[in-house]
Parts: sequence; structure tokens; C-alpha cells
Amino acid sequence: MEKETGRIEGFSDGVFAIAVTLLVLDLHVPEENSIKNGNDLIIFLKNQWPAFLAFVLSFFSIFIMWVNHHKIFKQIYSRNSAVTFANGLILFLVSAVSYPTALLARYFEGEASSIVVAIYTGIFVLINLSYNLLWYLASKNKELLRPGITDVAIKKIQNNYFYGLPIYLIALLFSFWIPTVSLIVILGLWIFWAASSGKIEMHLNNSHKR
Amino acid sequence: MEKETGRIEGFSDGVFAIAVTLLVLDLHVPEENSIKNGNDLIIFLKNQWPAFLAFVLSFFSIFIMWVNHHKIFKQIYSRNSAVTFANGLILFLVSAVSYPTALLARYFEGEASSIVVAIYTGIFVLINLSYNLLWYLASKNKELLRPGITDVAIKKIQNNYFYGLPIYLIALLFSFWIPTVSLIVILGLWIFWAASSGKIEMHLNNSHKR
Amino acid sequence: MEKETGRIEGFSDGVFAIAVTLLVLDLHVPEENSIKNGNDLIIFLKNQWPAFLAFVLSFFSIFIMWVNHHKIFKQIYSRNSAVTFANGLILFLVSAVSYPTALLARYFEGEASSIVVAIYTGIFVLINLSYNLLWYLASKNKELLRPGITDVAIKKIQNNYFYGLPIYLIALLFSFWIPTVSLIVILGLWIFWAASSGKIEMHLNNSHKR
Amino acid sequence: MEKETGRIEGFSDGVFAIAVTLLVLDLHVPEENSIKNGNDLIIFLKNQWPAFLAFVLSFFSIFIMWVNHHKIFKQIYSRNSAVTFANGLILFLVSAVSYPTALLARYFEGEASSIVVAIYTGIFVLINLSYNLLWYLASKNKELLRPGITDVAIKKIQNNYFYGLPIYLIALLFSFWIPTVSLIVILGLWIFWAASSGKIEMHLNNSHKR
Repeated sequence: MEKETGRIEGFSDGVFAIAVTLLVLDLHVPEENSIKNGNDLIIFLKNQWPAFLAFVLSFFSIFIMWVNHHKIFKQIYSRNSAVTFANGLILFLVSAVSYPTALLARYFEGEASSIVVAIYTGIFVLINLSYNLLWYLASKNKELLRPGITDVAIKKIQNNYFYGLPIYLIALLFSFWIPTVSLIVILGLWIFWAASSGKIEMHLNNSHKR
Repeated sequence: MEKETGRIEGFSDGVFAIAVTLLVLDLHVPEENSIKNGNDLIIFLKNQWPAFLAFVLSFFSIFIMWVNHHKIFKQIYSRNSAVTFANGLILFLVSAVSYPTALLARYFEGEASSIVVAIYTGIFVLINLSYNLLWYLASKNKELLRPGITDVAIKKIQNNYFYGLPIYLIALLFSFWIPTVSLIVILGLWIFWAASSGKIEMHLNNSHKR
Repeated sequence: MEKETGRIEGFSDGVFAIAVTLLVLDLHVPEENSIKNGNDLIIFLKNQWPAFLAFVLSFFSIFIMWVNHHKIFKQIYSRNSAVTFANGLILFLVSAVSYPTALLARYFEGEASSIVVAIYTGIFVLINLSYNLLWYLASKNKELLRPGITDVAIKKIQNNYFYGLPIYLIALLFSFWIPTVSLIVILGLWIFWAASSGKIEMHLNNSHKR
Repeated sequence: MEKETGRIEGFSDGVFAIAVTLLVLDLHVPEENSIKNGNDLIIFLKNQWPAFLAFVLSFFSIFIMWVNHHKIFKQIYSRNSAVTFANGLILFLVSAVSYPTALLARYFEGEASSIVVAIYTGIFVLINLSYNLLWYLASKNKELLRPGITDVAIKKIQNNYFYGLPIYLIALLFSFWIPTVSLIVILGLWIFWAASSGKIEMHLNNSHKR
């Protein structure tokens, strides 16, 4: 069976690539009259550290989402309307990430810290849910998947996204208590995905080569 | 016969992906001195609801247009200048959607409501017309289409776009009377496309497999 | 011989698609306090007509450049450094078009009219020159071209770009005298490209099928 | 062995294409009331020369990085997590280039000149390091590479990036002394890459055809 999802992947890659590249627009250049010398500029850049943190955090979060998107669609060979719209939901949320990022960059320091961290972690909870939805809709109909995929592999992918959910929820809860912890949890998830991604892939390749 | 429209589809996908992702730039982050605490931020975000509504409405409208574009070009195997320029017209209008969206976001509440909703629904009328034009130009010359496509399938696609036109015109008319109804009609059309898209596809696939 | 220029075309398509879609960012939404009712908005939009004109003119100019880029690269099967960098020059100028477009949108009315039209037409002169350069560099080494391409076809493409040059120069000259004529000439070139594009293509396809 | 890196290349091309095209947004259009006639506009544009210089410099730097990315991935046929994340690091830095470019455009003239040139050359040092890292991670595991690639070719690519590092470091050092020299060094590296790129490619193609 030929893979039919080429154009859906191309479009998704486009949205991921643009979403990730637009993030840089939230790094602000100081106004011309506010900077007199190199020292002023260094102070300005130092004070803007939440913007740089938010930029790095969102860039690699979206990048890892793309890696995961890639991995899921390697197993999806055909699509129906439900899969198309679940994918649309993911793309919508990914394209929206730059807004909570901009809020985080500007208000992480100060009284509104909890709210902006809650909104920021909240969007990752929603993205995690939409990945779970996509895989649920794709895998409940085995005709859509790569021929020869094993039930173990299907379950493994499902668990991978399912286990992310409680961690994102913990990050969301911490935002109301110690916002910094939330961001550390999200950072920690990168390492989780990076490590687990290796293992799943190995498994899937094995089942592929048989 | 080999499909010759690969690069036109790639370029179109790029324009759709960028148009849809740029929409987020219309969500404004509040000025630094206007927000003192979390409450101020929540109030700011609540007052910005037309911007969020416009963002969601335009994102999924363009996304569904992309799905439809994909579906049409699955049937187009070759192209001539007329098809190229009809496609260019669609891309022009799609790339322009973010401007009426920004107007809607800022002026949906207030005296200019009717005008911005009329402009917003007006661009969807034009996009619908340009899809009708594209399919008319492509299908009047059967050499451009997928070999083996049936007349029933051609007619089915034509009707799909043709029936959308009066509905968009109704939305346009309502904008001068009860603007909210216009937006509900556009929202309703999503469900129409999503539902009808499933059926057409099934039909075309059947005729494909024969 | 296999076509080796796939990734260069993909990258170029990306730049064209983004350049064309970013143009909409130059359409300005009026400030919130400047618009009291629908009438104010209509007056604002009417006064912004040079921005809409510049948007339409630049969109279709870049779109036609993309069509021509597509057409040239259908004949180029292999690439060397010279072709890569000539293509880079085209992409540089295409990505820059939005700046003269923004100048045109803001200053077409008023004293600076000649200068902005001269800059605007000037960039099209440069783009035309870089297309001539690309085709010169690609065609002087027949090993880079599609196997079986005839000398007549090579000459035909060359003439197509060569004849555009004096017309763009005329547009440039008129900008210092009657700027409006310059824009009409550029608009007229669309029709020239659209018409001639059909004919060249037919010729090339014939030579292809033989 | 089939090439498995198609989608990673497509995504990377997207990021490069967007990063390069967004640079134009840093060219500012003068405020409406500041320009009375054509002369005012010419003076404004002349004073903005560092912005144009930064635009040209960054555009072709990213373009050459893309050419090099293309060249490396022509040799990489398979990928593991390490290669994916090294590539992510390159894309992160490439997408960030527009920020140092904007700083350079605004502060190259004046007291903060050294700092902005140091930041600007600094990001190129980091990009060079991440290219070295990518090739190190890809080539240490010959299973990931194009079957039949020779050790000479692997070494040649490695040297190509390795030799760039001291030159970028020299540019970085000069930024604290004579900032203009730094920019000339970066410009000089273009010629180095363009010239060396030709030679390496020739070598690789020979080893390919054998």
C-alpha cells in the first residue's frame, strides 16, 4: 500500500517550521534613544532574560512536537476526515504557542507570573490532549496504519503520549504555586521525549524489519 | 500519466501554511505598564475575545480551504495557464484573509461591526467564487484531470463548491442586519464541509478503485 | 538522467511563498480611537488605496516570477555553484520586494512619488537581470539542462527574459516623469508573461514529446 | 538503502526559507510625517545603510548555510536522535539570526558598535560549532551515511567546517578592536565557502560515480 499522507505531512511541516521561526519576532530590539553605549545594551539584554528563556523553551518544545508528529505519521499511511481534523487541531495549537510565549516573555517577572505560566503550560496540556486524540483516531482503525504494525508498537506510542499528560498537568498545577517549577518540569519533559523517542523508534524499526 | 502538479501543490501548501500561521500575529500582548497583576491580565484577555474568536474562525476556515484545495488537486493531473492563474487568485485571497480578520478582531464590538463583518464574509464569497472558477477551468478540459475520473465525480465536486456560494451570500447579507448570525453561518459551513468532504471522498475513492 | 534540483526548487518555493504571503503585513489596521463608526472605517480604507494597489501589484508580480522560476527549473536537471548563487540572488531580490512595496504604499501620493516608483520598478529591473543571469549560466553548459532540450527552446526562454528588460527600463524611466504610467507598464507585463508563458510552454512540451 | 531523511530536510528547508525571508521585516519604513519629499526619503534611506548592509550580510550567510546543510544531508541517509537534535540546534540558531541582525542594523554606528558586532559574529561561531557537531555525530556512525562514501570525502567535509571555526573566532576578536574588519571577514568567508563548495562537491561526485 502506498503512503497517502504526503501532502498532509508537507503542510504540517510548513506550519511547524513557520511557528518555530516566528518566535524570534518576540525578541525586542531596544528603542534607538534608550541605548547610549555598549553597557546600556548589555543591561537591556540582561533584563530581557525571560524573553530569551521563553524563546528557547518554546523553540525546542515545538521542535520536539514536530519530531513526534513525524514519528506518528511514519505509522499513518492513510487518512480519514477525523484524522485530518485532529491534525488540524494540533496545528492550530502549535501556531498559537507564540502568543503564550510572548505573554511569558513580558510578564514572567512580576505579579502576573502565575497567570502567564498557567496559560503557557495550559497550551501544552491541550497539545498533549490533541496528540492523544490523533493517535486514538488513527489507531482505532488499523486500515489507516502502516501495514504490519504490531499491537505492541501501537500501544507503545499511545503510552508515550498518555504518560506525558499527568506531567503537563503537574506543571500546570505548580504554576499557581511556584511558577519556576512549572518551567523546569516542561524542560524536563524534553529530556523524557528525547530519551523515550530513541527507544520507541528502535522498537518500531525492529518490528518493521522483523 | 504522471501527475505534473507537484510543484504547484507544494507552493500552494506553503502559502496556506504561512497564511494560517501568521494569524497569531494579530493577537496583541498588552503594553508593559498597563498590566499590574494577574487580574489585569485576565481582564485584558477577556476584553480581547473578538480577537480570539476571529483567530479561531479564520484558522479553521483557511484550514478547511486547504483540505478542499488538496482534494481538488488530487483530481488535477496536469495544468495550463488558466488553472495556474485561477490557483494564483485563490492564493492571493487566502493570503489576504488575515487583514479582514484583524479588522474583525478590533471592530466587531461597536458601531463599525456591520462593515467589518461584511468585509470578512465578503472575502469568503470571493474565495468560494475562485474555487468555482478553478474547478470550472480544470474540469472543462478533461485532459487535465485524473485519468478515469467519472462525470458523476466531476459533477459532485462542482456541486460541493456551488452550494457553498448561496450560503456565503446569506452570511454576507446578514452582516448588515445581525452580524453575529453571519459568523454563525460561517461556523456552520465548517460542519457542512467536514461532513460533505467525507462523502465525496468516499465516492471518488470508489470510482478510483473501480 | 535523474533531476537533481529537487531541494533547490523546494527551498525556492518556500522563499517565494513566504515573500508573497508576508505582503499582507503592510496593510495597516487603523488605530482603535481613530474609528468611531462604519463610515470612518470606509473612509480609512478608501484613503489606503495605494496600499491595496501595491499589495495586488506585488503579489501577482511575485506569483508570476514563481511561475517563471518553475518553468526555468523544469529545464534545469543539474546544478553547479554558479547556478546556485544566481538562484540565491533571485531569492534575495524576491524576499526584498516587500520593502519597496511598503514604500510605494505609503508614499505613492505626495512629493516622494517619483522616488518610490523608481525604487519599486528598479527592483523589478534587477530581478529581470538576475533571471537573465540564471538562464545564461544554466544554458551555457548544456550538461545542466534537461536531456533532449532543443536549441530553439533554449533561445526561446532566453528571449522571453531578454525582451522583458527594455520594458522594465521604460517603466523605470517613466517613474521620473509620470509615475502612474510605470505601474501600468508593470501591470501590462503580467499580461505579456501570462500570454507568452502559454506559448513557450506549448513549444517546450512539443519538443519534449517530439 | 533508501534515503530516510526526506522529511527532516523538508522541515529544515522551511526554517531556512522563513528565517531568510523574515529578515526584510527589519528594514523600516519611515514614519508618515517625517518625509515631506523625495529628498527626505533619499536621506532617510542613506542613513539606514547599516540596516541594508546587515540585511545583505545575513541573507547570504543564511543562504550559504542552507547550501552547506543541503550538502551535508546529501551524505546522510539515515538519522538517529543525536543527529535530529544537532540539526535542531542548527535550526534554532539560524532562526535566531534575525535578532543579532536587527541589533547590528540599529547600533552598528555609535558607542555600542563593538557589542553588536561581537553578538553578530558570536552567533556565527555557534552555528559553525553546531555544524561541526552535526557532522561529527553523523559521521562517527558510518551506517547513517550514504553507502559507498569514502573516508577521504568524510574527512574533507569535516575539514571544511573545522577550518571555518578559527576564522569566525578571528572575526569575533576583531569586533572588540575594529568592528568593520569583523564584517569584512564574514563577507570573505562567503567567497571561501562558495569556492570550496565547488571543489568538495566535485570530489564527492567523483567518489559517487567512481
